[in-house]
Amino acid sequence: MRSSIITATAICLALTSDAQDSVMFRRISDEVLLHSTCYDNLRDLCKNVGHRLSGTPAAAKAVVWGEKTMKQAGADRVWLQAADVPCWYRGKESLALKMEKDFREVPALSLGNSQGTGGKPLEADVVMVYNYEELKAMPDNAVKGKIIFFNYRFRQDFVNSFEGYGDAVNYRWNSPNIASRRGAAGVIIRSMSTGEDDFPHTGSMHYDDSIPKKIPEMAIGNQSANALEYACKRGTVQARMTSECHMKEGLAHSYNVIGEIKGTEVPERIITVGGHLDSWDVGEGAHDDGAGCVQSIEVIRALKAIGYKPRYTIRAVLFMNEENGLMGGRAYADSAIAAKENHIVAIETDAGGFSPRGIGMEMSDARKDRIRQYTHLFLPYNVYDFSHNEGGADISPLQRKMNLPVAGLMPDSQRYFDYHHTANDVFENVNHRELKLGAVTLAQFIYLVCEHGLD
Amino acid sequence: MRSSIITATAICLALTSDAQDSVMFRRISDEVLLHSTCYDNLRDLCKNVGHRLSGTPAAAKAVVWGEKTMKQAGADRVWLQAADVPCWYRGKESLALKMEKDFREVPALSLGNSQGTGGKPLEADVVMVYNYEELKAMPDNAVKGKIIFFNYRFRQDFVNSFEGYGDAVNYRWNSPNIASRRGAAGVIIRSMSTGEDDFPHTGSMHYDDSIPKKIPEMAIGNQSANALEYACKRGTVQARMTSECHMKEGLAHSYNVIGEIKGTEVPERIITVGGHLDSWDVGEGAHDDGAGCVQSIEVIRALKAIGYKPRYTIRAVLFMNEENGLMGGRAYADSAIAAKENHIVAIETDAGGFSPRGIGMEMSDARKDRIRQYTHLFLPYNVYDFSHNEGGADISPLQRKMNLPVAGLMPDSQRYFDYHHTANDVFENVNHRELKLGAVTLAQFIYLVCEHGLD
Repeated sequence: MRSSIITATAICLALTSDAQDSVMFRRISDEVLLHSTCYDNLRDLCKNVGHRLSGTPAAAKAVVWGEKTMKQAGADRVWLQAADVPCWYRGKESLALKMEKDFREVPALSLGNSQGTGGKPLEADVVMVYNYEELKAMPDNAVKGKIIFFNYRFRQDFVNSFEGYGDAVNYRWNSPNIASRRGAAGVIIRSMSTGEDDFPHTGSMHYDDSIPKKIPEMAIGNQSANALEYACKRGTVQARMTSECHMKEGLAHSYNVIGEIKGTEVPERIITVGGHLDSWDVGEGAHDDGAGCVQSIEVIRALKAIGYKPRYTIRAVLFMNEENGLMGGRAYADSAIAAKENHIVAIETDAGGFSPRGIGMEMSDARKDRIRQYTHLFLPYNVYDFSHNEGGADISPLQRKMNLPVAGLMPDSQRYFDYHHTANDVFENVNHRELKLGAVTLAQFIYLVCEHGLD
Repeated sequence: MRSSIITATAICLALTSDAQDSVMFRRISDEVLLHSTCYDNLRDLCKNVGHRLSGTPAAAKAVVWGEKTMKQAGADRVWLQAADVPCWYRGKESLALKMEKDFREVPALSLGNSQGTGGKPLEADVVMVYNYEELKAMPDNAVKGKIIFFNYRFRQDFVNSFEGYGDAVNYRWNSPNIASRRGAAGVIIRSMSTGEDDFPHTGSMHYDDSIPKKIPEMAIGNQSANALEYACKRGTVQARMTSECHMKEGLAHSYNVIGEIKGTEVPERIITVGGHLDSWDVGEGAHDDGAGCVQSIEVIRALKAIGYKPRYTIRAVLFMNEENGLMGGRAYADSAIAAKENHIVAIETDAGGFSPRGIGMEMSDARKDRIRQYTHLFLPYNVYDFSHNEGGADISPLQRKMNLPVAGLMPDSQRYFDYHHTANDVFENVNHRELKLGAVTLAQFIYLVCEHGLD
């Protein structure tokens, strides 16, 4: 008898709590959908700061923007956290292809961190391969001194476009190493792109220490890649790469921007939500990752606006240098360890300002199940997918060094790799409702962890 | 013992069937994502036919386009089905507002089916109300001879934007009747729009037989509505409406376009998939509903391309006149009844070419559950929501007159009412992957019904 009374009481309490959670989920959603400043903030960042590669004056301006905007959102405390960053310089660049009788320029972007041609033209025959296996099978004399066109296609058959990206991205990251070891003079890649357009996509690459020479790497858009493929099949094609890009010596001072709502009961325990403030040096870094920045700030604004008093401290972090160094993420983790901070969970938003579908998690199964028991609360907001392993690059040092549970917002992925790292990643391609709903999901997740913990 | 053998056999068969279904789902997805012509077809429809209001030469051109494209898709049989349609004519139109010292034109669209000002300026003071209750509370002399501005806002707090549309749309459909009965001279409405822009949204309205006078109705975009609201709060505003629009006498001949794959075992049983071929007379009718047309055609193409032999006959129908009469939907139902056709289910796609999230159903609970038991097959394609009651306007006569189970593709709704019925509903605002995934969901649904039936 007694146990059934206890059970009934527990069920009643659970129901009450569930109803309260449901009301709070709605309050968060209404606040963001009706009163959010995140879309206006994104316009401001995109149009008045623009693209903001680490170490540039624009990145410094973005830090000022972040600090101001975080304060306007009503954070209890806002501060800058030092993070020294590498400085890659693009400079002038061009790619001309001789597919018919004359050289003609095509839209192209040097890959980030790469070494250009010193501003002088590098002219050579183009050798097309579809993959690394094809290159491997070629005799040395067919490769030596040539410009290798890695014509690996982004696989459109993956429903989740991040799987297509994961499948293809090594051709951006690693091709100059493979080609340099075979004596090639330069590399052209088909962009990591789902787009049916001609925007080239930049993004980071790296040189192995052991390669004979740092050779240049440029990306072309899908239409130019199709034309080049066609021309290579028909006969000899020559390319002329000219680029000034290089990595500058040493590091530059820069910062993460941090704002927080102080916890009321256990303020020393911290929940982090963040995106990255730097972007590539084309477009406006709207989806990647201006969206994540303004959503993280919106979590602070919305929770303050509805008068929520969180048990734990909630921190929004705008990380610097996600794109080509991760120095901001490292600095945040190092500082947390040095200060012996007590973190509960970190969630990143760096997959574009699209309609949210789920939250990926990298944590114990028990903790995942703890979150999944609240799936029904998320469903009215069209968020249903808690099945993926997902964190984020900026919070990966925290995860690794502190063994911290991490999570990542998972928006619809269909359009992301149309815009990612291109001149087309601009404010106009972000929808205000989709952007806001991402902030809703983040704030709801953080509310849940505040109320119910992860353990 | 025997029963457990039977059970085990049944489970094995179910598993085998499930594995087969899963393979077929993947085959459909790969075929569409890698080889679909639907995006190219949509470009062709949008750019070479353009907008195509019922009864116009463009609508006739769209019928030719539909017949040709359905044949190219490989349908076993393609035919036109007569449907006579009303002809509304827009003509020249303008709306000028005197909010400061001079009249200035703002972007505006007469609502479909409405009667204009005969091309002559109609000038009057503007009276703003936020809703019908406010108008009701006003004395007659405050309304009589005035132009009423119905400033009802599309509710952005609904997560599903179709709920916001359902909530607001009566202000487009019915306001001239309400206002005419109070002696008003004309109506301006805030568009049924989620957009943070100034595109006016057209769409259908109607006149009650009992009203004293058919007064004109025009829609303005959200930015102009904000400006007009502000001006109305500060003082007197005048409006000058000029429009030639009117409903022409009689009906014009037009057609539904129908293509089918003949069933191999029970060809007399029919599954219908369709969208509507007509559009409003602005933009290109890309999302509304060029997307639905090319997706329906793609179902035929993809199922033929993978060599699928359906048990039942599969029909793709491009309905004429969904926007302002539904005469195509009626003709299809009437023909089905006259020919004593044996229909299983009809599914409509008329909610935009966005990333699919679910399939709404209007049918018995037993049938809904029959579909829902296959949810796990749809999940890898990010389709999870089978909870809504949803059919489609074009298939509603079939549903009503034949008591037919119906369904509707439910894509993500966040962007639809930015574009719906505007000059901005153009090809460029449709993403190729999102469009294709909608076709994948439709083909998978139809495959399931072919294999397992609904009963």
